Amino acid sequence: MTDAIRNAIEYLQESRDKIMEDYTELLRFPSIGADPAHADDVRACADWIVSQLEALGFENCESIATDGLPVVYGEWLKAGADKPTVLVYAHYDVQPVDPLPLWHSEPFEAVIRDGKIFARGASDNKAGVWGNLKLFEALLQANGALPVNVKIMFEGEEESGSPSIEAFVEANKERLAADVLLNCDGDFEPDSPQLVYAGRGIVSAEVRVSGPQADIHSGLYGGLVQNPLHVAGKIIGSFHDESGRVLLPGYYDSLNEISATEKERVEAGFQAEEMREGAGVAAFWGETIAPASERATVYPTLDVNGMWGGYQGPGNKTIIPAEAGFKITMRIAPDQDPRVVSQLLKAHVESFATETVSVACSIGEEAWYFQLDTDGPWLEAVQSAIEETVGARAKLVRTGGSIPILGVFNRLIGVPITAFGYGHGEGIHSPNESLDIDAFFISLEAAVRLYQNLGAVEK
Amino acid sequence: MTDAIRNAIEYLQESRDKIMEDYTELLRFPSIGADPAHADDVRACADWIVSQLEALGFENCESIATDGLPVVYGEWLKAGADKPTVLVYAHYDVQPVDPLPLWHSEPFEAVIRDGKIFARGASDNKAGVWGNLKLFEALLQANGALPVNVKIMFEGEEESGSPSIEAFVEANKERLAADVLLNCDGDFEPDSPQLVYAGRGIVSAEVRVSGPQADIHSGLYGGLVQNPLHVAGKIIGSFHDESGRVLLPGYYDSLNEISATEKERVEAGFQAEEMREGAGVAAFWGETIAPASERATVYPTLDVNGMWGGYQGPGNKTIIPAEAGFKITMRIAPDQDPRVVSQLLKAHVESFATETVSVACSIGEEAWYFQLDTDGPWLEAVQSAIEETVGARAKLVRTGGSIPILGVFNRLIGVPITAFGYGHGEGIHSPNESLDIDAFFISLEAAVRLYQNLGAVEK
Repeated sequence: MTDAIRNAIEYLQESRDKIMEDYTELLRFPSIGADPAHADDVRACADWIVSQLEALGFENCESIATDGLPVVYGEWLKAGADKPTVLVYAHYDVQPVDPLPLWHSEPFEAVIRDGKIFARGASDNKAGVWGNLKLFEALLQANGALPVNVKIMFEGEEESGSPSIEAFVEANKERLAADVLLNCDGDFEPDSPQLVYAGRGIVSAEVRVSGPQADIHSGLYGGLVQNPLHVAGKIIGSFHDESGRVLLPGYYDSLNEISATEKERVEAGFQAEEMREGAGVAAFWGETIAPASERATVYPTLDVNGMWGGYQGPGNKTIIPAEAGFKITMRIAPDQDPRVVSQLLKAHVESFATETVSVACSIGEEAWYFQLDTDGPWLEAVQSAIEETVGARAKLVRTGGSIPILGVFNRLIGVPITAFGYGHGEGIHSPNESLDIDAFFISLEAAVRLYQNLGAVEK
Repeated sequence: MTDAIRNAIEYLQESRDKIMEDYTELLRFPSIGADPAHADDVRACADWIVSQLEALGFENCESIATDGLPVVYGEWLKAGADKPTVLVYAHYDVQPVDPLPLWHSEPFEAVIRDGKIFARGASDNKAGVWGNLKLFEALLQANGALPVNVKIMFEGEEESGSPSIEAFVEANKERLAADVLLNCDGDFEPDSPQLVYAGRGIVSAEVRVSGPQADIHSGLYGGLVQNPLHVAGKIIGSFHDESGRVLLPGYYDSLNEISATEKERVEAGFQAEEMREGAGVAAFWGETIAPASERATVYPTLDVNGMWGGYQGPGNKTIIPAEAGFKITMRIAPDQDPRVVSQLLKAHVESFATETVSVACSIGEEAWYFQLDTDGPWLEAVQSAIEETVGARAKLVRTGGSIPILGVFNRLIGVPITAFGYGHGEGIHSPNESLDIDAFFISLEAAVRLYQNLGAVEK
């Protein structure tokens, strides 16, 4: 262990109580980005983080306005031109707190209990913000400098789908220029570290199918007036063939096969039996399309997440309902353009309109797939730091889920991306969110090594 | 006007205030047959009606137990063997009262206001019970006898789908034997009298489509696990072709064409433009199957009355839902056996089950179409009584709706059926149900003539 590392780790160990005590200040901001009533709280939280960065000696610190909520920016560029520049991403907005009655303590008054700190955002993702701030503090206090140049980008809209981030990144390409992006929105479990290296994009939509002006009597009008629920059924029924293949015309046109190496990695990381038991189904579905591991992570999907229309209570109500609706999310494959996919969906769905039933498909989220480095020096910097700290390297996992912000960086910045999470958390997006304090300090120790490793990567 | 008619009408006019005052006693029973909490109220109401029939001199009066709620029976058979026997049907159970806050007065404490009496059941169908009781009282007081033999059958389960009536009728065929059935569950509007002479049968069903054991993440499982909402969509989408024809195999096999005369009558009674405006649609649907008038009244239908599954709130929830469901009613044509139709539906729906998604179709109501006389002496007795009282004959209307009890009589008793309603009512099945008192007494006057006319029909 070098002196620089030892000094920083000692600083963190000695400051442990104060670090957790000060963390409650950050956790006190109800920075619920999705709730307009909390917009001022989100902005106040951004300002507070800016002041923390300034106190550390970061420069050009700013709460940068966007079309929505601000991005916190700050930079420390004194490591020298021969050292890499690391763009650090985390988000300081948090999920809503409901159902509030299920919380055992106030969501924004942090409480330490059983080695965990309980508060909304304690893990997701104020741990990413606070972990970085305290890491830089430790490195600067112990060694007077950081091993790399650092640019901070902390977002305030992650939990509401990052609606402003694409325009922000587009408008700030120069300011955000870096050699590597380090995504700190994630978890760190010392016993079984994982690293999600790729995922699918996402397109979401909501469909409204409207017929008669009000619910009408199915005895008087049955056979005479087209029922919007029947049209909704025809649309939903049109999405897949019997084997599970999505029937949207051209949906698979831009699907690039993954490499043989990648197929092996995906297959190796796929826990078929665990997944099947988790879903509680007798078998998977769609076997003729591709192996299960690839269908779950690489191939594009289309799922109806909810549907409704007419009478849903007990017994009968003999009506032709006025309206039906359903919600869709599509997970899209590498290289599929979400804007193309969404228009494909919209055109297909709306083609079911008739003279007497209207169909409107409104598109919600449109996000690209993402891809982190699966080898090379940036990933090695992360893996060796983790290995040296907890004795094992992180398992590389491909997810079927989506991290829209990484897709934006992939496409607009084109910078290599790697990831490191501060954790370990529980109750994310649920009541009684918490952060395991031991795991948090283990991840800080690993982060000290990570930044040293990053400083040793040749540009 | 004969003395017998004049005497009875004078009695009714003189007793008008007392008749309405006493009516509040019948209206006081909360005889909500669909609500098990009110079963004793329904039985108390039946007992009270039995006592009224006994006081009139009816014989063998009884509240007859069924598998559900009792049928009130009573008979007056002293008109002589050469006179027809009329089986009078009405029902004394009432609809639930919710939403209670919308009532301007207590539903079971009748209030007279603006020439109307307001109470739950004031029109539907305690007016049918009370109209007959007071008519018999007037005829007996004024003339000492009824012009026909009368058997009373007042049901207590009409508003909950008459679940016990078929078994009851089957078990009491001899007791119910008559020359004509007079259905008094209906309305009487002096300004534009109508008589519904035929309607469709009905089959209802509820379908449950079950997949994963709980809602699961659409990112992790999308493409891997079959989504029950997709299967529900395929089933709903399978019911009709593009022209609106129901695609159940064999669904039209037992459909008998109606006669040319009947086609003309159906067409004459069909208000196309009013119907279209009432539904608020640009056009009807299914024009290639049959004329609109017949599609709305004769041809069988299949409508999804409600559907549900997964997330229905604002925004997105990225899930593959555990379950979907929907409700169906089918209006069935003359001669279609509801038990055959229901099995056809069940077999078709359940054929969509897969290895990983189960489909269960449970059948609810199964009722035959019904058909009243459209000519002959019984109808003429009704029509001439109405014409003499209000100056116009009732318009004969075929409905697309269902009156299950009449289908039971058609099939099990095989007796000619005609109809006469006591009314006119408003707010049926809604808050602030009322009966127009003037119209009620006009219908009583017509009923006096009706019973005289029935007494003149040769057996």
